[in-house]
Amino acid sequence: MRRVAVVGAAGYVGGELLRILIGHPHVEVVVACSRRQAGRQVDNVHPNLRGLTGLTFVEPDALDCVDVLFLATQHTQTMGAIHGFTRLAKQVIDLSADFRLSDPEVYRRYYGVPHQAAELLGDFVYGLPELHRDRLRSADRVAVPGCMATAAILALHPLAAAGLIEGGASVDARTGSSGAGATAGPENLHAERSGSMRVFAPVRHRHEAEIAQQTGVAVRMTATGVEAVRGVQVLCRASLADGADERAVRQAYRRAYAGEPFIRIVAYTRGLYRLPEPKILTGSNFCDVGFAVDPASRSAVLVAALDNLVKGSAGNAVQSMNIRHGWPERAGLEFPGLHPN
Amino acid sequence: MRRVAVVGAAGYVGGELLRILIGHPHVEVVVACSRRQAGRQVDNVHPNLRGLTGLTFVEPDALDCVDVLFLATQHTQTMGAIHGFTRLAKQVIDLSADFRLSDPEVYRRYYGVPHQAAELLGDFVYGLPELHRDRLRSADRVAVPGCMATAAILALHPLAAAGLIEGGASVDARTGSSGAGATAGPENLHAERSGSMRVFAPVRHRHEAEIAQQTGVAVRMTATGVEAVRGVQVLCRASLADGADERAVRQAYRRAYAGEPFIRIVAYTRGLYRLPEPKILTGSNFCDVGFAVDPASRSAVLVAALDNLVKGSAGNAVQSMNIRHGWPERAGLEFPGLHPN
Amino acid sequence: MRRVAVVGAAGYVGGELLRILIGHPHVEVVVACSRRQAGRQVDNVHPNLRGLTGLTFVEPDALDCVDVLFLATQHTQTMGAIHGFTRLAKQVIDLSADFRLSDPEVYRRYYGVPHQAAELLGDFVYGLPELHRDRLRSADRVAVPGCMATAAILALHPLAAAGLIEGGASVDARTGSSGAGATAGPENLHAERSGSMRVFAPVRHRHEAEIAQQTGVAVRMTATGVEAVRGVQVLCRASLADGADERAVRQAYRRAYAGEPFIRIVAYTRGLYRLPEPKILTGSNFCDVGFAVDPASRSAVLVAALDNLVKGSAGNAVQSMNIRHGWPERAGLEFPGLHPN
Amino acid sequence: MRRVAVVGAAGYVGGELLRILIGHPHVEVVVACSRRQAGRQVDNVHPNLRGLTGLTFVEPDALDCVDVLFLATQHTQTMGAIHGFTRLAKQVIDLSADFRLSDPEVYRRYYGVPHQAAELLGDFVYGLPELHRDRLRSADRVAVPGCMATAAILALHPLAAAGLIEGGASVDARTGSSGAGATAGPENLHAERSGSMRVFAPVRHRHEAEIAQQTGVAVRMTATGVEAVRGVQVLCRASLADGADERAVRQAYRRAYAGEPFIRIVAYTRGLYRLPEPKILTGSNFCDVGFAVDPASRSAVLVAALDNLVKGSAGNAVQSMNIRHGWPERAGLEFPGLHPN
Repeated sequence: MRRVAVVGAAGYVGGELLRILIGHPHVEVVVACSRRQAGRQVDNVHPNLRGLTGLTFVEPDALDCVDVLFLATQHTQTMGAIHGFTRLAKQVIDLSADFRLSDPEVYRRYYGVPHQAAELLGDFVYGLPELHRDRLRSADRVAVPGCMATAAILALHPLAAAGLIEGGASVDARTGSSGAGATAGPENLHAERSGSMRVFAPVRHRHEAEIAQQTGVAVRMTATGVEAVRGVQVLCRASLADGADERAVRQAYRRAYAGEPFIRIVAYTRGLYRLPEPKILTGSNFCDVGFAVDPASRSAVLVAALDNLVKGSAGNAVQSMNIRHGWPERAGLEFPGLHPN
Repeated sequence: MRRVAVVGAAGYVGGELLRILIGHPHVEVVVACSRRQAGRQVDNVHPNLRGLTGLTFVEPDALDCVDVLFLATQHTQTMGAIHGFTRLAKQVIDLSADFRLSDPEVYRRYYGVPHQAAELLGDFVYGLPELHRDRLRSADRVAVPGCMATAAILALHPLAAAGLIEGGASVDARTGSSGAGATAGPENLHAERSGSMRVFAPVRHRHEAEIAQQTGVAVRMTATGVEAVRGVQVLCRASLADGADERAVRQAYRRAYAGEPFIRIVAYTRGLYRLPEPKILTGSNFCDVGFAVDPASRSAVLVAALDNLVKGSAGNAVQSMNIRHGWPERAGLEFPGLHPN
Repeated sequence: MRRVAVVGAAGYVGGELLRILIGHPHVEVVVACSRRQAGRQVDNVHPNLRGLTGLTFVEPDALDCVDVLFLATQHTQTMGAIHGFTRLAKQVIDLSADFRLSDPEVYRRYYGVPHQAAELLGDFVYGLPELHRDRLRSADRVAVPGCMATAAILALHPLAAAGLIEGGASVDARTGSSGAGATAGPENLHAERSGSMRVFAPVRHRHEAEIAQQTGVAVRMTATGVEAVRGVQVLCRASLADGADERAVRQAYRRAYAGEPFIRIVAYTRGLYRLPEPKILTGSNFCDVGFAVDPASRSAVLVAALDNLVKGSAGNAVQSMNIRHGWPERAGLEFPGLHPN
Repeated sequence: MRRVAVVGAAGYVGGELLRILIGHPHVEVVVACSRRQAGRQVDNVHPNLRGLTGLTFVEPDALDCVDVLFLATQHTQTMGAIHGFTRLAKQVIDLSADFRLSDPEVYRRYYGVPHQAAELLGDFVYGLPELHRDRLRSADRVAVPGCMATAAILALHPLAAAGLIEGGASVDARTGSSGAGATAGPENLHAERSGSMRVFAPVRHRHEAEIAQQTGVAVRMTATGVEAVRGVQVLCRASLADGADERAVRQAYRRAYAGEPFIRIVAYTRGLYRLPEPKILTGSNFCDVGFAVDPASRSAVLVAALDNLVKGSAGNAVQSMNIRHGWPERAGLEFPGLHPN
């Protein structure tokens, strides 16, 4: 059993890490850190873990050496503390945005502050197994992708890599409320958020940078908060290159994702769930990807869906850990999601 | 046109008062007070009022004399400021809990603090037209009932008054999230509150005191927050007195509410909406009441539903004002609710 | 008082027509037709109308002459019966899709059947007052736009008319469940639809044809069903013409919609409701329109929101009737929507 | 590996059985029957199972012998076919209501039809491990309890058994929409059901009979459909016997449920989840039970929550199978539920 710890464990991503890691056959969670909730029992904050853990949150200072350290800490605040964290564990898996972008200048543009640990950017592997599995086999530093970025990259990558896309793409992303975190504010008040369709980022959403970096496709992204606690869905719209048709698109996905344990191609002409839908993915590590091609305009609409706290963050992180340690990739990640839900 | 003002106008009850009063044919809203939002445009906080008002929130100190003053202020904080408010307006309509209970000792027991203006308790008429219309015709001080209390009293009163109830009653109340107000906290975070059934008061809910005072029935009340932004529903369970049957129950309701503009008796044996359901009452001032009698156990289940921000507070307040001024009781309150919604 | 009748009155659009018309100061609803519910009381099907109407649904055959006849009937089935209807009323307002498209060939392509009354297409005025108010003043035949089309046209028209858009536009539409009507099927089962993000039309949604016809902009549209009972929101993405910037965009909207009673320009940089959001429009006839411009890519994201059963259908129909009869345009349509909701 | 089959596998309970059994370490699902969906792929109807099963639904006639047969068939229709089913498998686990009540006369009273296989009633063990584990160790015929009955029995039993309850109890049950099954009808149309609080059984709900039979407590039950897809919560109100206080209540629960793998006692004075809440139990086999005691009235409010498709049916069935076969009771049932969800 490897010893693992989670920093930022009282938040929603942190709680999801705990849930997955507590049920994982090859690790033991030895520490759950939270400055905000230090001293409180873990299952008091994450009541789904009642009966499954006796842990109490501790201050980050109380952290000791572990085999794998997960950082579910804030964007722009992780980079300042990173040197302290890397001393504590052979493998550090960061779920914040701070080490996802290889170019510190792009980071500054999208996050509004200069990068404080630019010298380490090259050490981090982007934690998306479907694109970087080989490098993840030996990665001691992993930067886990953003939830909407994960969905968009998994939708765009096979077509981009196969040269089927012409020009850029537009991405319309929809997200549930847990993506905004566990800190209460007017924007996530139930009475305001319930049933809403809130366009919180009409232009220049931060995940554009990750998507472009990973796929080579210039994207314009819009993000809308919709009713759901968990779940991200993206619609990507792109023009197809000369000669590309529905068959070519389907083939590109099939090739790219053959054997992938967590990608399902969902593109049917009938049925309620003929295209990817996050509702049935809650709690699962699947990312479903699908598409529709309009031959008249030679364009494609690509759709991807996932649970923002699982494949969009904690699950992806654990999948990356599994790869590094040579464990079965599905270890701890076998829950398939519910129907109905 | 009478001049009216609202204190606490940035909250949810305050916003609902503004919506109703702005559309009211006989009044003009001259001031909207909010300490928290002073200086901000009203329609910025209540975006449904865009294009309908040019008002800006002002500090309470900026209040000047008006004809009717509505207090949508906090429980336990209204009583301390009441003398200042009563100097400003001939009619003061208080939507807090501070002047609902005639006995200051009961107030202390349920609200945990001694009453600071007990000498004024006798001046306030309980603002429930169905029980106190005559006194409201000349009432310059009105204490508007609590939302769950309104529903429970309207369900219990006809039977209690007709002597059809034996012993006490239990009340199971369910409420939407707007009842908790517009101040963000962990308890009304969307991710926690969405789809929940949260028993936030298993015993001794404060509204028990109002219900007992108004109906003479001793009640034990349980309150649960359910998914809905607006809406209260109560289920009251009572034993029927000797000889009371379904016909007697129906008759008691019919007599009690004949001619009432905002009470509808909803007790059918078929149809999706055969008993009162808050979903179709959103935005309306109706309180629907219904019942089912179980002859075997000689007991009755009484059901009432309303919109907690309208008949459960702001609408009831305006109805009371209409009565005092001799205006049609429906003035400003004609919206019937939506189906579906 | 003009005498009006509604055909298809048991459906959701029909029920909304009844709600608005019953509260309308200048008309009397004399007949509510429904083949499916004939013989049943109207307020049994639409429980929000309890106490407001004593009408019973009748078979369409029982229809007699009225001043205004509203058709809330099915697409592809209205055209076959239209001659019968036009004999019954001076003004016929059709809320189906059958008379919206001026070119029968386009109709056939999008609706899959040949048009059965193509000779009448020229008699119908497209019932969008913001674009066709002058023609509506004398229109005896009105074809009310589709709900998503209404939103998209109102978002695109001002820019298209001012020559600010270059090339086509993509439209991402989200819609609540009432748009699918009142007939139960697997697709609108609560357990399947609740919290879903269902891409039911990834390409070639029917409303594309209306939007292109009205704005001259070629659109590619995607439609997704999201959690909400009422409400449509569209995001339109377009490239701006040379020299067009945010100021020009804002000016185009201001000019186009100056004095419009039901259009509000909502494009702020702060606040929860800084862009149009259907949640606060439930029950109202407003269509809020807003935008964000990305100077870097010289593109704009246009957002519009409305209640699909009001401005997206029944309300728009009544607004058109008001114009034809010289009544105040807001008559019957004054409900502003709720916050929170 | 034991061979198992599910009849009624296209419904919601059937789908949940498939999900659990497919992930179960000791069984293999060999047949999924559904008359309605015969010939269709299982994962087309239950899209959460994509990639996990290649099964196709077959007609019930195609059933062959298996080790365990699960019947997720309709109430009142299972009993007529039971003889055919019992020939096919050593263990038959019936999830319908037909074999839960030992007295055929009570069955007739609550289900409205005479029992067609009363001679078999004695063969069935009531599948609630917390009350009947010993008998379940050798039970070849199991009748799985109703979802609301399970919650109410688990709340009432410890107090009833310890003699702490005086007189009967009232039960207020709330349930999500999946309990109504997968067949579309007006009552489960999203637009009608969303956000509703529908008192569909104000008196004499069928589960009263099971609760009384199992606990010896006469109950009066009210059932309300609330917004949620999954989840049942019951509030039971009872008077406490002389001398019973909060400590005695807590002790009774602790004793009754010591060592139970799926019961958690949740009765805190603080925290959002201080009493049982179905929201965090989705997908899990836990039943959380809690209570609050009001010393003044010497009464208790007991609260229990579970996922109606798991501990309220499919999970409980699998737990019973595990017991019969000597497998770990948690096998296949380890998913803990999500926070937030």
